[in-house]
Amino acid sequence: MTRLSWGMIGGGEGSQIGPAHRISAGLDGHFNLAAAALDIDPARGKSFAVELGVSGDRAYGNWQEMLDGEKGRSDRLDLVTIATPNSTHYEIARSFLEAGFNVLCEKPITMTAKEAEHIVAIAEETGQICAVNYGYSGYPLVRQMRAMVANGDLGKVRLMKAEFAHGFHADEADADNPRVRWRYDPAQAGTSAVFADAGIHAFHMACFVADQSPTEISADFASLVGNRQLEDDAMINIRMDGGALCRLWTSAVAVGRMHGLTLQVFGENGGLSWQQQHPDQLLWTPLNGRTQILERGDGTLSEQAVRASRIAIGHAEGLPVAFANIYHDLADVLRAQKNGSTPDPLALDYPKATDGLWSMKAIEAAAKSAGSGGTWVGL
Amino acid sequence: MTRLSWGMIGGGEGSQIGPAHRISAGLDGHFNLAAAALDIDPARGKSFAVELGVSGDRAYGNWQEMLDGEKGRSDRLDLVTIATPNSTHYEIARSFLEAGFNVLCEKPITMTAKEAEHIVAIAEETGQICAVNYGYSGYPLVRQMRAMVANGDLGKVRLMKAEFAHGFHADEADADNPRVRWRYDPAQAGTSAVFADAGIHAFHMACFVADQSPTEISADFASLVGNRQLEDDAMINIRMDGGALCRLWTSAVAVGRMHGLTLQVFGENGGLSWQQQHPDQLLWTPLNGRTQILERGDGTLSEQAVRASRIAIGHAEGLPVAFANIYHDLADVLRAQKNGSTPDPLALDYPKATDGLWSMKAIEAAAKSAGSGGTWVGL
Amino acid sequence: MTRLSWGMIGGGEGSQIGPAHRISAGLDGHFNLAAAALDIDPARGKSFAVELGVSGDRAYGNWQEMLDGEKGRSDRLDLVTIATPNSTHYEIARSFLEAGFNVLCEKPITMTAKEAEHIVAIAEETGQICAVNYGYSGYPLVRQMRAMVANGDLGKVRLMKAEFAHGFHADEADADNPRVRWRYDPAQAGTSAVFADAGIHAFHMACFVADQSPTEISADFASLVGNRQLEDDAMINIRMDGGALCRLWTSAVAVGRMHGLTLQVFGENGGLSWQQQHPDQLLWTPLNGRTQILERGDGTLSEQAVRASRIAIGHAEGLPVAFANIYHDLADVLRAQKNGSTPDPLALDYPKATDGLWSMKAIEAAAKSAGSGGTWVGL
Amino acid sequence: MTRLSWGMIGGGEGSQIGPAHRISAGLDGHFNLAAAALDIDPARGKSFAVELGVSGDRAYGNWQEMLDGEKGRSDRLDLVTIATPNSTHYEIARSFLEAGFNVLCEKPITMTAKEAEHIVAIAEETGQICAVNYGYSGYPLVRQMRAMVANGDLGKVRLMKAEFAHGFHADEADADNPRVRWRYDPAQAGTSAVFADAGIHAFHMACFVADQSPTEISADFASLVGNRQLEDDAMINIRMDGGALCRLWTSAVAVGRMHGLTLQVFGENGGLSWQQQHPDQLLWTPLNGRTQILERGDGTLSEQAVRASRIAIGHAEGLPVAFANIYHDLADVLRAQKNGSTPDPLALDYPKATDGLWSMKAIEAAAKSAGSGGTWVGL
Repeated sequence: MTRLSWGMIGGGEGSQIGPAHRISAGLDGHFNLAAAALDIDPARGKSFAVELGVSGDRAYGNWQEMLDGEKGRSDRLDLVTIATPNSTHYEIARSFLEAGFNVLCEKPITMTAKEAEHIVAIAEETGQICAVNYGYSGYPLVRQMRAMVANGDLGKVRLMKAEFAHGFHADEADADNPRVRWRYDPAQAGTSAVFADAGIHAFHMACFVADQSPTEISADFASLVGNRQLEDDAMINIRMDGGALCRLWTSAVAVGRMHGLTLQVFGENGGLSWQQQHPDQLLWTPLNGRTQILERGDGTLSEQAVRASRIAIGHAEGLPVAFANIYHDLADVLRAQKNGSTPDPLALDYPKATDGLWSMKAIEAAAKSAGSGGTWVGL
Repeated sequence: MTRLSWGMIGGGEGSQIGPAHRISAGLDGHFNLAAAALDIDPARGKSFAVELGVSGDRAYGNWQEMLDGEKGRSDRLDLVTIATPNSTHYEIARSFLEAGFNVLCEKPITMTAKEAEHIVAIAEETGQICAVNYGYSGYPLVRQMRAMVANGDLGKVRLMKAEFAHGFHADEADADNPRVRWRYDPAQAGTSAVFADAGIHAFHMACFVADQSPTEISADFASLVGNRQLEDDAMINIRMDGGALCRLWTSAVAVGRMHGLTLQVFGENGGLSWQQQHPDQLLWTPLNGRTQILERGDGTLSEQAVRASRIAIGHAEGLPVAFANIYHDLADVLRAQKNGSTPDPLALDYPKATDGLWSMKAIEAAAKSAGSGGTWVGL
Repeated sequence: MTRLSWGMIGGGEGSQIGPAHRISAGLDGHFNLAAAALDIDPARGKSFAVELGVSGDRAYGNWQEMLDGEKGRSDRLDLVTIATPNSTHYEIARSFLEAGFNVLCEKPITMTAKEAEHIVAIAEETGQICAVNYGYSGYPLVRQMRAMVANGDLGKVRLMKAEFAHGFHADEADADNPRVRWRYDPAQAGTSAVFADAGIHAFHMACFVADQSPTEISADFASLVGNRQLEDDAMINIRMDGGALCRLWTSAVAVGRMHGLTLQVFGENGGLSWQQQHPDQLLWTPLNGRTQILERGDGTLSEQAVRASRIAIGHAEGLPVAFANIYHDLADVLRAQKNGSTPDPLALDYPKATDGLWSMKAIEAAAKSAGSGGTWVGL
Repeated sequence: MTRLSWGMIGGGEGSQIGPAHRISAGLDGHFNLAAAALDIDPARGKSFAVELGVSGDRAYGNWQEMLDGEKGRSDRLDLVTIATPNSTHYEIARSFLEAGFNVLCEKPITMTAKEAEHIVAIAEETGQICAVNYGYSGYPLVRQMRAMVANGDLGKVRLMKAEFAHGFHADEADADNPRVRWRYDPAQAGTSAVFADAGIHAFHMACFVADQSPTEISADFASLVGNRQLEDDAMINIRMDGGALCRLWTSAVAVGRMHGLTLQVFGENGGLSWQQQHPDQLLWTPLNGRTQILERGDGTLSEQAVRASRIAIGHAEGLPVAFANIYHDLADVLRAQKNGSTPDPLALDYPKATDGLWSMKAIEAAAKSAGSGGTWVGL
């Protein structure tokens, strides 16, 4: 198994997302960091890239240099990860896709649905991979939920309850803290704050698990701290094309909630309940039956869950390993692409540009609905 | 301490609510069942009353007979509990209040807000007590939450998240089960099913804890099983007069949820989280601090919580004891009424006719909002 | 259903155990307090008895007066509860049993195994009931565990893990607090402190659930705070006559543990896990299967559990209700005794003098083993 | 930061422990796999090593070849990991240490205490690093417990309660399964089965957290399934040199327990409780105070915990990341060794040969005690 050749844009020294990608890409040894433009400060970015083992000639000062330097090479990068500030995703993703690179873009894929449509179109035309990093979908038991729905264990999905609530923007004294303030400023953050930033992970997870897409959205946005312009708390109702109704709560003022990403799925024949803080257990209640605790690592789970799990039952596996599953999927698909073979169908569950597009549509619809008193808005 | 004289209407043999009231009223020895009209079948009701220790001449065939027989007695009933079918509450409560009795009525107090307003008016005019049985508000740690809010521990309450979700009406095969069907039939149940039946407890708890009343409601109702006319799942946003926003989810199709009555309260200075299934623990997170587990029975809790707690810390206390706190409060107030003294201020937290009225208004507003696509409706 | 006539010795104003018995005896309306000697102070005891509704002529100054006054009456007490200080249990229980009364004695039944043997012998000779209050055995899910073992669901029980650990005697500054000190003084407490006081409940529960008796005990006792003479922490290994091994930990210095009464039962075909702090859930794992959550109130549980449960599934039921099951059992048996009928076999699970005797034997054996370096001591 | 040069013995294709080491060593990019002898089958081992990126000339057929090939190189391996069957650890570790290599050996370090003493002596003489993989000690909150004890937050540690109980060897039908059987065969497993295999992790954790060593041990071993010769369940009491008492339960027949590694620490001034299955939360109860939930990732924790934590608060981190902390510590120490500088004192908490020695002594003492009816055996 030769390592795939990997490039990275953004995620320099001191960033949180940079090490997360490097841990995940390297965890199984699938990817080797071969080229990088890591920092807004060219010199610092180059030197950090070299420190990470990138050869000097492939350590770039910015993404344009990297595109120029890499596009003509015969030992082409197999994948380029984009982990720059949100507002730059569109241009960078578009440029690399158009130059024939496969891309994994941090979420949000773009700042607008229109831009996201463009990215989807390019990816479709070129046949290149454009993945979007909804990393929580790599958790084995999230994939178990999806597999159980697909397998019909729940019957028709009637209802989903999704949450992503935390309390880290609840301090009024923090209102002018620049690390917090920009998130609630429409000029920098767009039409939505906490839904676009946090709640969208719950949205993606609900769509992913039910394998359904939204058709209509009704939302209530609230700004509960200081004089924030964008919402720091939202309740969103979503009607989906397979008939499911999803109720999604997201908040940044829920003091005491650490990382409240949870999903409950209720169908005709049973219900599921999962929470990110204890990701190795999944509760499953068959209709009129007793609740069972499904443990990650249990060999009788779905093949999707088994494939996504690395360590023995009873051990905590955690997010870095879950996130590595996205890279694992991409490695399988990229190798198949290189070999002209068909990838393992189980590798096709990584989040894609279309998921990024649905997210942008949902954000825009929710903001529109919230702005008009909660009217249902079609997508 | 002489026992107070207590009468009961409804709650005959085989009912669930009857024993609950008798356990709670008798738990501390405050009340002695002296008169009763327990059953729709007069003979059965009389014989069961005698079996419960009521003397033959005060065992009645129906509530009208009981009213006639009791109103002229010198050894008057101190309290009359009404536990008959919902549609009869209004007439019975009104009649007994007008005849000068103190009343504890099962919820809902009436079938409409207009009727509830009438009951409130009579209670105010006569000075009689009219309590409504939101029994979950008797839990010591629910009272602790209210005390902490009142004490300013949370600062201004910004947000509440309330839930009452269960999965016991999720079976399509049960749709024609008469014990389930009537709940979703507007002719029998009124304008709302699961919100009026289950969610209203979460609504009352939120109002009680924050000590605020609703001003505007926006709701989404869904009927997810069979061809039900009334909702079996609802999401309700509530704006309150003290500035709090409450988001309330209620469901009868949440398979796997047993009794999902929970309340989270988020303020400027901290957050609280409580769940009815494990009522003896309350989570409290001061802003920027660590989450603490408050245990029922801890002597350093508020005097409200200490007063409402009977057994040592570390033991499960449970609903019957919580419910007995309502009777305990009423006993204190009734004794003060008899003595012409001032009751213990801590005894005044029992749910009242005005709480019943707010519930009816909220149900009507939510149904109206849900019927018009989620528009905000004022109360 | 006429109420049974009930007498009470000890449990006066200000005691914790007194109200617990009165709540439990009265909860279902089975017993009526007809005679009492409640207090070491005769006048205070009489006046409190009258306040509780006892007629003046049956409010006694001490237990001897009560025995004299009650033994000749035609309207005889059906049951006498003994809730006096431990060292008096033997004499009072013996006297009332010999005079033909049925007795429910607080634990410990006596201060020595020899005395307990005497009580057992008298009860057998007279045919009177002598119950001992291991009240935790009244929890519906404890009875469910026993029923599952009896039903063979676990196969042969191999191992039990029992705990009763709390941290309320951990404060060195409390060492001279008289409410704590006497417990660790052999002159007042006998041969054991925390095992006799707390751990013995876990011991009884293990015996009760497995339906086995101890044959050999090996123990390690530790005194970890100040210069206590008796143990405040103990580990006890118990071999039982049905082949089960029980490992029991008890502690009074486990800071942070509120009321750590737990039981795990491991058999050939599955395992059970229950904890008193959340008594309404029981975990059951069939061998090679998934852990299931059994909920109190589930109608598919054993008839023992269904009979012991009063309120709907999903509600917390708590200790006072569990404890009332002991009184409920006794009421069934006493009524059958009076009628000359056969009692409901399900009512025969209340803890008996023989359970009290096994406890005393276990305490003495454990103390002996601990005193000789952990040698196995036969019972 | 150049990568350190790393060699691996054992852990070939299909092993569980191999990928665990490679994930952990590679997670932060500290180590580069440069040489390997991965398999009992030389050809398979070589080819797998090449697949993992090792150059052909450093892919060896067995450990002796690797020792010969590597010992003379100028680009010497910085660390050699030994992940072969237990009975080979001693010889391989000794040989590599004597040849001047730094070693990380899987536990157990040897099969006897005497051998372990030899390893410790060599490591001391040579000044080489000999680490032993008690990987659970890498969890941030385990290090937090140790830091809190060291900081005096608990005062004197009185008592520890340690457990490692699972139920994966409970199936009688599995008794002849070769993957299970050898563990209970003294010829292959030595003097102890479940204590040596599983419980020893709990033992190490208790010693590590309290920073104390055992002085006396009393143990009860039980063989509960089939005709096993070695114990599948054990209770062990340990007296430690700092005055703490540790009670340790370990089991392989606890059906329903997945991975019951837990530690509770009780001191004069407070208590701690942690469980491996949910490693990101630690309960801390100050004496007479309320229990607090400490979250991994909280910046106010000890510097040891902060250093050991990689991802944001509220996310599950899991074992692979914890395990990587051992490699991270070693990387720091190895770099300091190479530079002649002083390593970060926080990096010195990795488990060492002396820890391996204490484990072997404890296993031998426990087996001896269990064999003589639980007598206390000095170490």
